[in-house]
Amino acid sequence: MYKAEATAGLAHILRPAAESDLLKELEKYVRDAGINLGWLSGMGAVSRATLRYYDQVDHEWDDLQLEQHLEVVSLVGNVSLLNGQPMVHVHVTLSDEEGKCWGGHLAYDTLVFNMEIMLQTLSGAVVSRVPDPATGLSLWR
Amino acid sequence: MYKAEATAGLAHILRPAAESDLLKELEKYVRDAGINLGWLSGMGAVSRATLRYYDQVDHEWDDLQLEQHLEVVSLVGNVSLLNGQPMVHVHVTLSDEEGKCWGGHLAYDTLVFNMEIMLQTLSGAVVSRVPDPATGLSLWR
Amino acid sequence: MYKAEATAGLAHILRPAAESDLLKELEKYVRDAGINLGWLSGMGAVSRATLRYYDQVDHEWDDLQLEQHLEVVSLVGNVSLLNGQPMVHVHVTLSDEEGKCWGGHLAYDTLVFNMEIMLQTLSGAVVSRVPDPATGLSLWR
Repeated sequence: MYKAEATAGLAHILRPAAESDLLKELEKYVRDAGINLGWLSGMGAVSRATLRYYDQVDHEWDDLQLEQHLEVVSLVGNVSLLNGQPMVHVHVTLSDEEGKCWGGHLAYDTLVFNMEIMLQTLSGAVVSRVPDPATGLSLWR
Repeated sequence: MYKAEATAGLAHILRPAAESDLLKELEKYVRDAGINLGWLSGMGAVSRATLRYYDQVDHEWDDLQLEQHLEVVSLVGNVSLLNGQPMVHVHVTLSDEEGKCWGGHLAYDTLVFNMEIMLQTLSGAVVSRVPDPATGLSLWR
Repeated sequence: MYKAEATAGLAHILRPAAESDLLKELEKYVRDAGINLGWLSGMGAVSRATLRYYDQVDHEWDDLQLEQHLEVVSLVGNVSLLNGQPMVHVHVTLSDEEGKCWGGHLAYDTLVFNMEIMLQTLSGAVVSRVPDPATGLSLWR
């Protein structure tokens, strides 16, 4: 079990602008604010979404385009370092007008209708991603 | 990007009474406790649920009645001000006996079987909702 | 409404080892670290999962075995006391390569591909589970 102990700092309450690209806005925010470690929780709605699923055998990403208006029933993510720069990693659960859910890794081209997000900043630990050959991902180590 | 920076206060660990109306209980709790800003995370089970989906074009809510016993696999929400009073905004993800998920905006008439919720209180910022003509919702500004 | 007020302590950023049993790892971690109260938030991916659904009438658990590689789009849980020992209670939402979601109570034999979890430790309150005949569960009281 990898572990790091951190201390909670300010909580940032965020609402990205309507029609903006959700992931790009979060990336820009943490970069501009100099946040290297944090935890994200959120909900809201998007006007379209791109989700990704990671193929654990082939080590490839499959993209899923959802050209629909969707509720975001859960957003969970974090900020940590990759090559010394903050990296935002987010998973979302979406629901359509029938209540049916869609989930995956948040990718670019997911457009905000309204999102309400808390970014809990953390300090006192350096959490960095390092390439991990076994999974093909960059993981905390 | 709208933003507000807040400081974490006490965390309230909550279990609404069995058979109570989940949203009403949360609303009453924050009103009685005088909480104007906070973040909610939770899980549990409900004996029936009412979810809402927001029509982003017509600016209308569609209700979905689920007359089933369901796990609550995620509850994400927040408390902020609307017309100077605390307003609770919650999205949930539910699952049935086949593991199938349902999601949406939490509405009245969702009845608690057992719910376990953390309300992280926040202070140092005033976060208020204001009517937003573009979406038809009351959004942070 | 049962309530307890607690103060946030250190946040533990965790990555259980690949191929480990997610629930067992969390249980071992809180026991070894002496954590009696906390809140869990996480996401990642698993190589197989076992979820449980609680039958609210018969008071029995139904297991659902998912022999698939799945994204974990949400993990929500907590640590509190049962018979004086820390007990970990977790619900997860999973998604497959089509984006379809599965949800339920996390059971043993859910194997980590990569998981990223924050355990927010809490102190200042004792939160204990007590057998509750009405639901057949051990609930906070």
